[in-house]
Amino acid sequence: MNAAEGTDTTTAGTSVRTVPAADAGPLAWLDHAREVTDPVLREAVDSLHPQARIVVGYHLGWWDEQGRPITADWGKAVRPALVLLSAQALGAPPRTGSHCAAAVQLAHDSSLLHDDIIDRDDMRRHRPAAWRAFGVPGALLAGDAMLALAVSLVRHDSPSALATAALNEAVQQFIGGQFEDIGFEGRAEVSLTECTTMAARKTGALMGAACRLGALAGGADEARAAQLDAFGRSLGLAFQHVDDLLGIWGDPRTTGKPAGADLHARKKSLPVVAALGSDGPEAAELAELYARDPATDDADVLRHAASLVERAGGRHRTSGLARRHLAEALDHLDATRLPACDTRPLRTLAAWLALRDH
Amino acid sequence: MNAAEGTDTTTAGTSVRTVPAADAGPLAWLDHAREVTDPVLREAVDSLHPQARIVVGYHLGWWDEQGRPITADWGKAVRPALVLLSAQALGAPPRTGSHCAAAVQLAHDSSLLHDDIIDRDDMRRHRPAAWRAFGVPGALLAGDAMLALAVSLVRHDSPSALATAALNEAVQQFIGGQFEDIGFEGRAEVSLTECTTMAARKTGALMGAACRLGALAGGADEARAAQLDAFGRSLGLAFQHVDDLLGIWGDPRTTGKPAGADLHARKKSLPVVAALGSDGPEAAELAELYARDPATDDADVLRHAASLVERAGGRHRTSGLARRHLAEALDHLDATRLPACDTRPLRTLAAWLALRDH
Repeated sequence: MNAAEGTDTTTAGTSVRTVPAADAGPLAWLDHAREVTDPVLREAVDSLHPQARIVVGYHLGWWDEQGRPITADWGKAVRPALVLLSAQALGAPPRTGSHCAAAVQLAHDSSLLHDDIIDRDDMRRHRPAAWRAFGVPGALLAGDAMLALAVSLVRHDSPSALATAALNEAVQQFIGGQFEDIGFEGRAEVSLTECTTMAARKTGALMGAACRLGALAGGADEARAAQLDAFGRSLGLAFQHVDDLLGIWGDPRTTGKPAGADLHARKKSLPVVAALGSDGPEAAELAELYARDPATDDADVLRHAASLVERAGGRHRTSGLARRHLAEALDHLDATRLPACDTRPLRTLAAWLALRDH
Repeated sequence: MNAAEGTDTTTAGTSVRTVPAADAGPLAWLDHAREVTDPVLREAVDSLHPQARIVVGYHLGWWDEQGRPITADWGKAVRPALVLLSAQALGAPPRTGSHCAAAVQLAHDSSLLHDDIIDRDDMRRHRPAAWRAFGVPGALLAGDAMLALAVSLVRHDSPSALATAALNEAVQQFIGGQFEDIGFEGRAEVSLTECTTMAARKTGALMGAACRLGALAGGADEARAAQLDAFGRSLGLAFQHVDDLLGIWGDPRTTGKPAGADLHARKKSLPVVAALGSDGPEAAELAELYARDPATDDADVLRHAASLVERAGGRHRTSGLARRHLAEALDHLDATRLPACDTRPLRTLAAWLALRDH
């Protein structure tokens, strides 16, 4: 049994099984992060106005539209795991950073709630999106409530104004990324660089902030917090690229979205942009297909579009970039000069996130 | 010339005319608050992503849809004035609290941006609402950016976590108030108490927080900050009631909204709720009219509805409540035991806000 193992109690008084051993796999760390963060998240959400609370808890998979308990979950808990494992990499006791873990999850979920309104996406995590269940006004206001709640939680772990500023900065970055993402849909040409810059803002910034907040909660100085931020930011890019692959080739049973969802929405995600930028006849055919009225889509067209992206090299190029960003992330982690045994869970999680197929 | 007068320089280096004399009228204080806050607001908005910045600056009346400078303004600057005058009531130097003034204005404007999306209101401050000019996605994201920016500004004046927490709490309150407001529209009956509770959340909380933030920036202790918060909260109720009167009987040339806009939108504002709760035949006729399809509205129907509300006592009752909340607000200000000469601008402003006809 690992020294860090043992039964643990959360702030809300519910018991958490045990802290995984240092050599545990990524899924064990993600499960643990969800277990540690969930009670903090529930306590925070309970403080909201009752009508905001019901929408937020629905979105997080705690209850149905009427508030009856169910057991959906609120995603993979990637960002909370980054917070907690960054604190742990500094040698902090288990659960250090749990409020920041809840904060980054809320900030992320706030953007998902608003994104679903913007994209008119009907489904989220295998269930009707909040705006479908409660209407646009309720989902919009609940997203606002989550965003403000997120910022208010940070100070419980890190009284320093630096930590709150880090989350605020990440929020501004991902809003900028969302603006760019929307802008891409209306443009004929998007460069690979623009696409990567957008992903760095939309996904990299908050994953960087997650690591920075965990590091600060764990007592890191500014320099080390910045290195962990850089690790999270590169990992975020790798993660987003894999997400883009899954948006085209992912299995609907695990992604919770229809097959080829990003192609249907005419998203200019990295595989598509890379394919459109290639020279062959597939690029031209794909461009022609993307220019057509989206309403004519059917499953065969989507399968054909996915095949065009693949034959034009978009899939290969994107996988390669994901691996390169993973390598960069691990370089940043090395630069912290933290003991390898303390950063092992972060490494394991990073490799899994950047190489996963679901 | 008053001792407090003199040329002043803002943080952004632009000159502000002069600090008004202590016996200046409310409009002079509002103008001054706008002058002090505007450069801080501009500097903050300049830090946003370029696409967020363009929407936010459009909403604030600094430029048109293409970013060409215009000279609309961003409202009456009521909340910034409350911040600055509360700091000044504590004897703080001029401009103390300017970042908090910008913060409360941004938080307020964030809610207006999102409110216009929710209510599908086409016009705001005599111009197309941001969602009409930039689409729902741009306006929604710009509102998010403003909300996060607001929270990040507070610490420039008040490093204490209490100040940021006060703004966050007010934001949660007004989101709760907005949820209730929306809920009222779908209900046949709303009580006067529900209506006042909603207004206390939707408007009172942020005006209370404005005063609290100004007080904290001016060096007030917790007890005095709480008294000034209570002053702002009661004043906010009075202000909202007057706003409800203007929503029915206001002049479109000054309100920037069509005549009888609230009646057209079937709002359950206080005058309507008071009228519906009365005994006479007007209440029954008004209820019948409110139950009809809003699409059948025309100017004559709106004028008739306004007359029903008035004859049922809704106008009289609402004016009376506004005056009562003003009296409560002034009692809270007395409880601070601050010198009368220092609180005079707050008193003058409060009386004007609670008794105004535009």
